[in-house]
Amino acid sequence: MTVNIHPTAIVMPGAKIGDNTVIGPFSIIGEMADIGAGCQIGSHCEIGVESGMLSSGTVRIGAEAIIRSGSIIYQNSTFGSELKTGHRVTLREGIVAGDGFQVGTLSDLQGHCKIGNHVRLHSNVHIGQRSTLGSFIWIFPYVVLTNDPHPPSEILEGCTVGDFAIIATMSTVLPGKKIGRGALVGAMTLVREDVPEDTICVGVPGRNIGRTSKIRFKNSGDPVYPWRRHFQRGYPKNIVAEWKKEFPEEGVRI
Amino acid sequence: MTVNIHPTAIVMPGAKIGDNTVIGPFSIIGEMADIGAGCQIGSHCEIGVESGMLSSGTVRIGAEAIIRSGSIIYQNSTFGSELKTGHRVTLREGIVAGDGFQVGTLSDLQGHCKIGNHVRLHSNVHIGQRSTLGSFIWIFPYVVLTNDPHPPSEILEGCTVGDFAIIATMSTVLPGKKIGRGALVGAMTLVREDVPEDTICVGVPGRNIGRTSKIRFKNSGDPVYPWRRHFQRGYPKNIVAEWKKEFPEEGVRI
Amino acid sequence: MTVNIHPTAIVMPGAKIGDNTVIGPFSIIGEMADIGAGCQIGSHCEIGVESGMLSSGTVRIGAEAIIRSGSIIYQNSTFGSELKTGHRVTLREGIVAGDGFQVGTLSDLQGHCKIGNHVRLHSNVHIGQRSTLGSFIWIFPYVVLTNDPHPPSEILEGCTVGDFAIIATMSTVLPGKKIGRGALVGAMTLVREDVPEDTICVGVPGRNIGRTSKIRFKNSGDPVYPWRRHFQRGYPKNIVAEWKKEFPEEGVRI
Repeated sequence: MTVNIHPTAIVMPGAKIGDNTVIGPFSIIGEMADIGAGCQIGSHCEIGVESGMLSSGTVRIGAEAIIRSGSIIYQNSTFGSELKTGHRVTLREGIVAGDGFQVGTLSDLQGHCKIGNHVRLHSNVHIGQRSTLGSFIWIFPYVVLTNDPHPPSEILEGCTVGDFAIIATMSTVLPGKKIGRGALVGAMTLVREDVPEDTICVGVPGRNIGRTSKIRFKNSGDPVYPWRRHFQRGYPKNIVAEWKKEFPEEGVRI
Repeated sequence: MTVNIHPTAIVMPGAKIGDNTVIGPFSIIGEMADIGAGCQIGSHCEIGVESGMLSSGTVRIGAEAIIRSGSIIYQNSTFGSELKTGHRVTLREGIVAGDGFQVGTLSDLQGHCKIGNHVRLHSNVHIGQRSTLGSFIWIFPYVVLTNDPHPPSEILEGCTVGDFAIIATMSTVLPGKKIGRGALVGAMTLVREDVPEDTICVGVPGRNIGRTSKIRFKNSGDPVYPWRRHFQRGYPKNIVAEWKKEFPEEGVRI
Repeated sequence: MTVNIHPTAIVMPGAKIGDNTVIGPFSIIGEMADIGAGCQIGSHCEIGVESGMLSSGTVRIGAEAIIRSGSIIYQNSTFGSELKTGHRVTLREGIVAGDGFQVGTLSDLQGHCKIGNHVRLHSNVHIGQRSTLGSFIWIFPYVVLTNDPHPPSEILEGCTVGDFAIIATMSTVLPGKKIGRGALVGAMTLVREDVPEDTICVGVPGRNIGRTSKIRFKNSGDPVYPWRRHFQRGYPKNIVAEWKKEFPEEGVRI
């Protein structure tokens, strides 16, 4: 086994680290960390460390993760393979995430949430506790999923986001709201009612204004959604093959 | 005296550190730091360090503080007891804060502001210079209190927030605006007029739409505000006892 | 030559560091870093480091930079003299920025963008790839410049911001939009049409509501814009002298 731990990194006894994994300078790997093979952990990270509000339990990080510098991952969560984070993300306790989860720089997951496969969060996304995200979701910068309908209260109503849904920049989703499969929330939208499947929601307050199918590329006139018809970068080959079968027409022209 | 300083931490001569305080790995404690007893300072923090724009003067941090990893606290501020921070907060110079101040992950206080007792800022809150916050305030993620009415100018008009007020997620308060005691600013609101006591302000631009007393819990029909009738978690026993005297009816049902 | 490198800092072979430059504790300077003279690099920084998504190439940082703690600067960018950053900024690859660039705490530049001289970004500004910024621009906290008109797609349409323009707090600029020279985008505005020169844009969605010349200081009645008539703090003497020639009337009273 070859584990490449920088001499300045601190790896506590009990930590499990897979073959060919690299740990960067000034990072701290706690005893409850169970990190898969072939991972790259950047500098100044903190993984599986007890620090007061951290619950006790193993944090499992699947193989081939890339965790960029300054990221903090609490105990008691599970991430599938190929987790990718930007810099200085915060992933608190109680997250169960599938494969191919991407979390952008500065994003802040408050923990106690479920996340499907191949979900992509851009920079500075905030996910409140009790959120439930399906698979193949995109959430863009400065989006917040809230959870307290009467702040401050002891009620926690997490949001639910369906497969293939998109939430654009600077939107806020109010507690307990459901965003349907394939729905599109426009930039700077305040979602205060559920958004049905394949529906566009925009505005403050957000209004459901129609079907995503009416959105067309400016140049070609081809439909933009479902986006998996034209955007497939970085997804696993078997999944892309399914999408190509689902939309056998010639490629969408952007 | 027992001070638990990690061997990789840097504590400069002159720093004062109270009994039973713990300093985490890769943290830097400057000569102008005066940290009380029983505090927990996480890893990768920087407290009381001179770094160019830091003014010179002691930063006093009261007993029993929990300062999570990656936080930066400038010189020349004073915090009461039981300060709690999330990760990577920035607390600049000239802050005077009372007891029980909580500051969420990534929050950024620009300094030169006054903060009462038991104020709670959630993640990623930005407080401009010259802000004045009372006590028992709640500010939720991605809220910004601004201060320049004619950007960029040399005028600084800080906002004022009254006791027990609540500012919900993603709201912006324009310079010099006053949010009254017990007022509620809804999510994604642009506050451009003063909000009277116990008043709800929502929208872009924000409108004062009525009294907080009309907000009821969905299930029970009981009043939500003032929130201290039903939400008391984490506040000191003597304060909770006062609140129970103030509202002697049987508990609010949420 | 005197270079002051903290003993805990890591400077990789090949890194070029100018005379009188200071490198703080726990910082990492990569082999592709070329840092000018008289710079101050705070603690916990990472400059010119290869970490997976970093492209390969020199990052040049001009003389007299102040880079505050926790900042990350990728390879393959160029910054003029007197770069100033807040804490924990992220400056990705492919940035070409002029002199006097200021970037506030937590700001996140996604790279592949052009920035003129003396541009000032406040805290937590997000600049998407392909953005083009002129000179003397001000962008305030929590502003996002987006670039994908049909998220997620392979189209990248960066925004363009003209000289002397101002974008106020919590605004979002939609992909490809142009903000004219001297224009003012108000707080919490969703810019979805181009904003002409010296024009005010406010609202969600943003509307162009008139000329900036109609904005007056409350007390004096003097015009606020162009702001260079009354705000000159921190700009180079020769530039301020030009501005004084341009507006030879007696000083604007705020």
